[in-house]
Amino acid sequence: MIGIFDSGVGGLTVVKEIKKILPEAPILYFGDTARLPYGNKSRETIQKYSVEIIDFLRAKNCKTIVIACNSASALAADYVRKKNPDLKIYDVVSAGAEAVVDTTWNKKVAVIGTSATISSGVYKEKIAALDPEIEIFVKACPLFVPLVEEDWIVRPETKKVARVYLKELKLQKVDTLLLGCTHYPLLEKVIASVMGKRTKVIASGEKLAQKLKKEMLCFEKKEDMYYASDITEHFAKLARGILGKSVRIEKIELNKD
Amino acid sequence: MIGIFDSGVGGLTVVKEIKKILPEAPILYFGDTARLPYGNKSRETIQKYSVEIIDFLRAKNCKTIVIACNSASALAADYVRKKNPDLKIYDVVSAGAEAVVDTTWNKKVAVIGTSATISSGVYKEKIAALDPEIEIFVKACPLFVPLVEEDWIVRPETKKVARVYLKELKLQKVDTLLLGCTHYPLLEKVIASVMGKRTKVIASGEKLAQKLKKEMLCFEKKEDMYYASDITEHFAKLARGILGKSVRIEKIELNKD
Repeated sequence: MIGIFDSGVGGLTVVKEIKKILPEAPILYFGDTARLPYGNKSRETIQKYSVEIIDFLRAKNCKTIVIACNSASALAADYVRKKNPDLKIYDVVSAGAEAVVDTTWNKKVAVIGTSATISSGVYKEKIAALDPEIEIFVKACPLFVPLVEEDWIVRPETKKVARVYLKELKLQKVDTLLLGCTHYPLLEKVIASVMGKRTKVIASGEKLAQKLKKEMLCFEKKEDMYYASDITEHFAKLARGILGKSVRIEKIELNKD
Repeated sequence: MIGIFDSGVGGLTVVKEIKKILPEAPILYFGDTARLPYGNKSRETIQKYSVEIIDFLRAKNCKTIVIACNSASALAADYVRKKNPDLKIYDVVSAGAEAVVDTTWNKKVAVIGTSATISSGVYKEKIAALDPEIEIFVKACPLFVPLVEEDWIVRPETKKVARVYLKELKLQKVDTLLLGCTHYPLLEKVIASVMGKRTKVIASGEKLAQKLKKEMLCFEKKEDMYYASDITEHFAKLARGILGKSVRIEKIELNKD
């Protein structure tokens, strides 16, 4: 069983990519919808929440974990790896950094994400460790998540907000832009149209799925399971929109006495 | 001690109004910043969080409670009153409904708020109970909170978003618009300019402070205290912006074992 978690529903964009490359992989998804979003919270709080979720996934017998939340990957991945040396823990930030290095040819790249992810500096670190010649431009885009949540995906106001956020990155003539938040693939079209044809817009889900495929050869046949810490009609609708089908989502309380 | 809580920093707009009318009142503030926002969460989760916070305020010796969060007022006020019959619990929704009734003369009013507040229907209920002749128009404006959080208060994009949200309400020629979310007073100017001169834009903080004043005659002299479940630089900055001064905010974990 592969345990995948995110602060909410955005991590399902990663599930979708994993399903494309590894359709047979059994998935256990957890969205921390009772405490989302993580992007404006402190390192300490995000680490605490990640530890609680991994304890839950461990109890559900997941030996492989995917952190499908950029904020948690940025601020808590190394922390939870140290605490859980027996688990194989993948994260979207490491995968995203590799995807950037694979894609760029002019060695000028951009990464966008939440405030927590961008101010952590983790993308700059990881990309520089893989190729120190790459020039990296970053920008926090805090309104993109609420715009997706509001389903304003094709509205002119969203394009206007995107123009404000992406203006500086566009001037830098980056050839690659990484969507460093799992909600952002839903805005891929508007972001790509603002950036123009010379910039390739990529997400980390595909690379992460390829990495998983390399290391996992066989799966027990099992049914996928979806959990969340809070369930609203809105959340279920967003999940349907991303996965292209309805899934049964079970509510689970992490802090239950 | 008056215990005041909100999902985050927005409730400080209510503290500010209370301080104007009752400068001597000792305040204990709690912002649930580790789990904000509440506006897109379910009734059950908001009730659970409100119970936990009131337990904390009770332990800190607060006998009077102000729910300075519209989502919690809408979905949990009656629930926590039943659970805590010995506490005097005020809420911004009841105060806001009274303020609307006091203000309107053409009996056409609008209320804006988060998805949770608006879809609860509680404003319609409370206003109708006070004056059944009043016609009430409501609109959820989920992007207003993130726009405030992003400090895009005077940007043209914010005015464009406000125009989209307020269009229908403006056509209804309401003479009163209630800001049914404690973050919204920070957008009062832009909302008022979109609605035009014929609509009075009001918040519930002032009415709530007047209600408190009527019932509380004397206070022990005590220092105000501010707590939050998560503290980021951003949160401290927003708090400074609202209160007009720096306050010491202490971090407190509600779920500590």
